[in-house]
Amino acid sequence: MGIIRNILNSRSKKDGDFYMRLEKVLGFKPKHRKYYKKAFTHRSVNKRDSQGNAINYERLEFLGDAMLSAVISSHLFNEVPSGDEGYLTKMRSKVVSREHLNELGKDLGLLKMVFTKIPKNNFGENIYGNVFEALVGAIFLDRGYKYCERFIYYRVIEPYVDIERLEGKIISYKSLLIEWCQKKKKSFKFEVYEDTGNDALKHFAVKLHIDNKVIAKARATSKKKAEEKAAKRGYFVLQREITKSVK
Amino acid sequence: MGIIRNILNSRSKKDGDFYMRLEKVLGFKPKHRKYYKKAFTHRSVNKRDSQGNAINYERLEFLGDAMLSAVISSHLFNEVPSGDEGYLTKMRSKVVSREHLNELGKDLGLLKMVFTKIPKNNFGENIYGNVFEALVGAIFLDRGYKYCERFIYYRVIEPYVDIERLEGKIISYKSLLIEWCQKKKKSFKFEVYEDTGNDALKHFAVKLHIDNKVIAKARATSKKKAEEKAAKRGYFVLQREITKSVK
Repeated sequence: MGIIRNILNSRSKKDGDFYMRLEKVLGFKPKHRKYYKKAFTHRSVNKRDSQGNAINYERLEFLGDAMLSAVISSHLFNEVPSGDEGYLTKMRSKVVSREHLNELGKDLGLLKMVFTKIPKNNFGENIYGNVFEALVGAIFLDRGYKYCERFIYYRVIEPYVDIERLEGKIISYKSLLIEWCQKKKKSFKFEVYEDTGNDALKHFAVKLHIDNKVIAKARATSKKKAEEKAAKRGYFVLQREITKSVK
Repeated sequence: MGIIRNILNSRSKKDGDFYMRLEKVLGFKPKHRKYYKKAFTHRSVNKRDSQGNAINYERLEFLGDAMLSAVISSHLFNEVPSGDEGYLTKMRSKVVSREHLNELGKDLGLLKMVFTKIPKNNFGENIYGNVFEALVGAIFLDRGYKYCERFIYYRVIEPYVDIERLEGKIISYKSLLIEWCQKKKKSFKFEVYEDTGNDALKHFAVKLHIDNKVIAKARATSKKKAEEKAAKRGYFVLQREITKSVK
């Protein structure tokens, strides 16, 4: 009995952790928890419902991708009244690019929440974007379009979507950040060290310090790339302050 | 004064006709008429707002396309619980194919409602699908996602979307229709006549009669193609009755 009680306790603790994290990510209380559980279930778990249909996030990705695209389209449509169809299509594809979605999923720490039977470090970058899309699909099923829209505003558009940046008017995040730090009399430092990970390729890791606080970290195959990546992440973190002072 | 009054009268009569037709197509009363007017304005009209932005349906197409895709995705997701991501994507692209949207726009008689400075018979087939998408965009702006969803159910999904048909299980609409007529003891006739239109290519036109009533018409470059096209249209018209008896 003691063993069973321990197993049940540890399972309900794990569930509790999951839902606590989930609420933090969502910014609201879910109504139907099952959709979210599915959104974080990898196919390796090999679960099926009573009809024999697979329970994992893959179908939800399809739904979430369509909802994300609809919400972003509507945002861009309203935000850029002078942009024609071609412009809007190009901007949308930048926002919902694989790279961008992976970055989002990573920043939200979604991998920690994934139920899987294979080790998490075996996943490639795409797991982040895939799970993020599935989460949007789950929100749509749980709460409908309005909540989906609110979540995407709060988690994608507000922190990440800046039209000028998407238009490519910002070329180097590193110089933008340095300029901002000098203007604001803040100290900054890119701390570079050679990363001795398990990768076949040699990697460089960079920590960006502003006023002696680590603002962002990044890894890449060259020092220059890693610095730019860290600056880009730092830019996202500080975006609201920066755009206010630069404009 | 008489001339101005006549112009104003004829303009308001034209407007009245437009909104009467529009309400019939929509199945509800629009709140903000300006969106719909834009959805039917071709670029040749060359209108601009006070900011200098073009007033025509092109941007609304972008918005409507995304909404259509979201609504169809959600429908397919619910309708086919066994379909995986690849299946769902394939089915969606069939429903929102250019060919399908053009057919829809044609059946709704949307070209009649288009404001244009170039002659309407100069437009290709795509005008139908483009205006249909723009109309969906206008509905979204006017009434939000819920109305958009309802309109797409009522105008696209209910009359046209049949999973079995999309899966390619129906090969010939002509044989399906003939089979159904024989079963139901209905008379049928494909009335074929050579079409002497202005086209460079020779065309055949077909009327499909069922119980001495014209059910559908079609034109194509061969007799066989025109018959199949008319049968397909007839199938849509009679779909609910047919699928009930065939299943």
